Amino acid sequence: MTPAAPTGSSADVPTARLPLRAGLEGLHPYGAPQLDVPVLLNVNENPYPPSDAVAADVADAVAKAARSLNRYPDRDFGELRAELAEYLRVESGITLAAEQIWAANGSNEVMLHLLQAYGGPGRAVLSFAPTYSMYPEYARDTITDWVTGRREEDFGLDAGHAVDMIAQHRPAVILLASPNNPTGTALPLETVEAILDAARTSGPTGADGEPTSAVVVVDEAYGEFRRAGTRSALTLLADNPHLAVARTMSKAFGMAGLRLGYLAADTALIDHLRVVRLPYHLSALTQAAALAALRHREELMAQIASLRSERDRLVTWLRGRGLQVADSDANFVLFGVLPDRHRVWKGLLDRGILIREVGPDGWLRVSVGTPEETAAFTTALEEVLEQ
Amino acid sequence: MTPAAPTGSSADVPTARLPLRAGLEGLHPYGAPQLDVPVLLNVNENPYPPSDAVAADVADAVAKAARSLNRYPDRDFGELRAELAEYLRVESGITLAAEQIWAANGSNEVMLHLLQAYGGPGRAVLSFAPTYSMYPEYARDTITDWVTGRREEDFGLDAGHAVDMIAQHRPAVILLASPNNPTGTALPLETVEAILDAARTSGPTGADGEPTSAVVVVDEAYGEFRRAGTRSALTLLADNPHLAVARTMSKAFGMAGLRLGYLAADTALIDHLRVVRLPYHLSALTQAAALAALRHREELMAQIASLRSERDRLVTWLRGRGLQVADSDANFVLFGVLPDRHRVWKGLLDRGILIREVGPDGWLRVSVGTPEETAAFTTALEEVLEQ
Repeated sequence: MTPAAPTGSSADVPTARLPLRAGLEGLHPYGAPQLDVPVLLNVNENPYPPSDAVAADVADAVAKAARSLNRYPDRDFGELRAELAEYLRVESGITLAAEQIWAANGSNEVMLHLLQAYGGPGRAVLSFAPTYSMYPEYARDTITDWVTGRREEDFGLDAGHAVDMIAQHRPAVILLASPNNPTGTALPLETVEAILDAARTSGPTGADGEPTSAVVVVDEAYGEFRRAGTRSALTLLADNPHLAVARTMSKAFGMAGLRLGYLAADTALIDHLRVVRLPYHLSALTQAAALAALRHREELMAQIASLRSERDRLVTWLRGRGLQVADSDANFVLFGVLPDRHRVWKGLLDRGILIREVGPDGWLRVSVGTPEETAAFTTALEEVLEQ
Repeated sequence: MTPAAPTGSSADVPTARLPLRAGLEGLHPYGAPQLDVPVLLNVNENPYPPSDAVAADVADAVAKAARSLNRYPDRDFGELRAELAEYLRVESGITLAAEQIWAANGSNEVMLHLLQAYGGPGRAVLSFAPTYSMYPEYARDTITDWVTGRREEDFGLDAGHAVDMIAQHRPAVILLASPNNPTGTALPLETVEAILDAARTSGPTGADGEPTSAVVVVDEAYGEFRRAGTRSALTLLADNPHLAVARTMSKAFGMAGLRLGYLAADTALIDHLRVVRLPYHLSALTQAAALAALRHREELMAQIASLRSERDRLVTWLRGRGLQVADSDANFVLFGVLPDRHRVWKGLLDRGILIREVGPDGWLRVSVGTPEETAAFTTALEEVLEQ
């Protein structure tokens, strides 16, 4: 039997045929193009680099940690968990124990841990489209069925539809991005509560034949950008042991390069994540740098207000230009409907501005940048739309 | 239907029953105890902290990277891959392209990527016990069957037995630690070649009914400590597109706190890992710090020679003391056979020395430390054995 698809790189090399798992054939790695362009408004980064004070404090903390890099890091990162809890207390007014916090290399690793603990063959993860395009990849990588319901015309979520989908699919995990990516839509807590109530006894059937709960994950990666009056799902944690609220330091904190995502939940849930995590998953440098950044939380949080008003200004401008714009509680804006969105995306790129071609057909997503970047974007968009 | 095992934390909180995946119930997180003890010889760390020059260079590199932490890191870490290839060229004399290198947060994340790509339900990963105790966890976390053959009395591997196991189980992945943990045993390349030949057409059956190859992973986490005359499996890469050789910066490089594992393989294999990796899995700080450390490779490699001779001295001493010691090509030594190994482990701990209670019953593993740490260990062991 001769292998059919040799991967050897020259004629002299014996062939081999790598046993790639079914479902992965022909797939490309996930990720937006990383192009070298003057104005980057494509991956919802915070446009403001760390201040000199923050950068210096991060550097000092890392320099200190570097002196004992021959040792493994604190596997349970207790100090970091305590400081993340303290940050959430200041930011959202919710008091949590350090033991209710989990963290990993980006919130996508946090999500992987959740699906490693609760997903798997014969289990489903439910979400509502359009939503974050990484979610199906977490499902795929954990051999979990990916099931999607739909969002409304305005990208909101109908609670009745959500409850029906839960009853029908009995998912192990429900992923709710709020604010949603790529639409910017935050969920009213009443909708989240309706879903939590339905999820309480609508998870997969346990080994004893009794129903389990579905774990409801509210992904608040962009939570700090929410408009006044929008409440965080952190306020629901005390009453819902099957709720996890995910956050990240990538966006509001302006630390995308650090890769630090985290979540808050009941300690029983955290204990499950501890079983599936790889030991020492958070490096000593990551822990030291995150702690240093958290010491500057007030400075970093002050910045959020200016990004929020820059977003609202951008929404107003786009609507004034006659475009549809989804209400946004995030640091990005989804606008449309364009007869040929690729032409607009390309026209902007030709003018040195990279945004993201993502979301429903006819829509484009632009991250909120500095006022100068917004001006460059709006000027270029005028030109492209007039062509 | 009332949930049976409420996880709510007080009587007022509505109950929920988390849908933990079957097989994870009652498990504890992996990891050796992290105790605060004067002499740490339990997790095979390099006892030498980075020199002032290395620590300063790491700190400078990170300080520079910190200034643009608001941006995502280079998703494909091209510069780091090139420098890791260059390091392998200097260390092992094998020339590889940057595209033949993969890296992740510790070699355990590299292993996870391998099993996410090639493992999964209905597939098996084969190894030979006693071996690294994390291997079954990688299998568990990727829903891959865990199959073990046996090592010989001297912890070597019988090629005939290995080939039989491959034919019998048609594994998707074969994990060979060389030097093996916890025994220190390096495999002769003839054994690896026999396994590679058998694996070439003995992987799982493909969708077309033809056999695939099993991917053979030679885990050389401790490879740099090999004795003179022991060859690296890197020398077999050119002829074996189904071979991956894993390394780490944790041990020989003395960078356990950095969490940087990597592997070398055919680019077709690397392309599969790129599909399953989470985007931006290597932080900007990790990339910057690893690059800085790699610039000091000559200094760090010089240190390896002294650890090797310290190991050989320790082996000689233990054997002189009448103990059995497995031949070691690593920076640790497995010794026995003790009628009550836990008593010996505890006696050492009482004297401020932490080693690892791991491996076959009656054996203990001690990491190679500084000459002072070796002296403390041998003095304490004398006392404990005389009790």
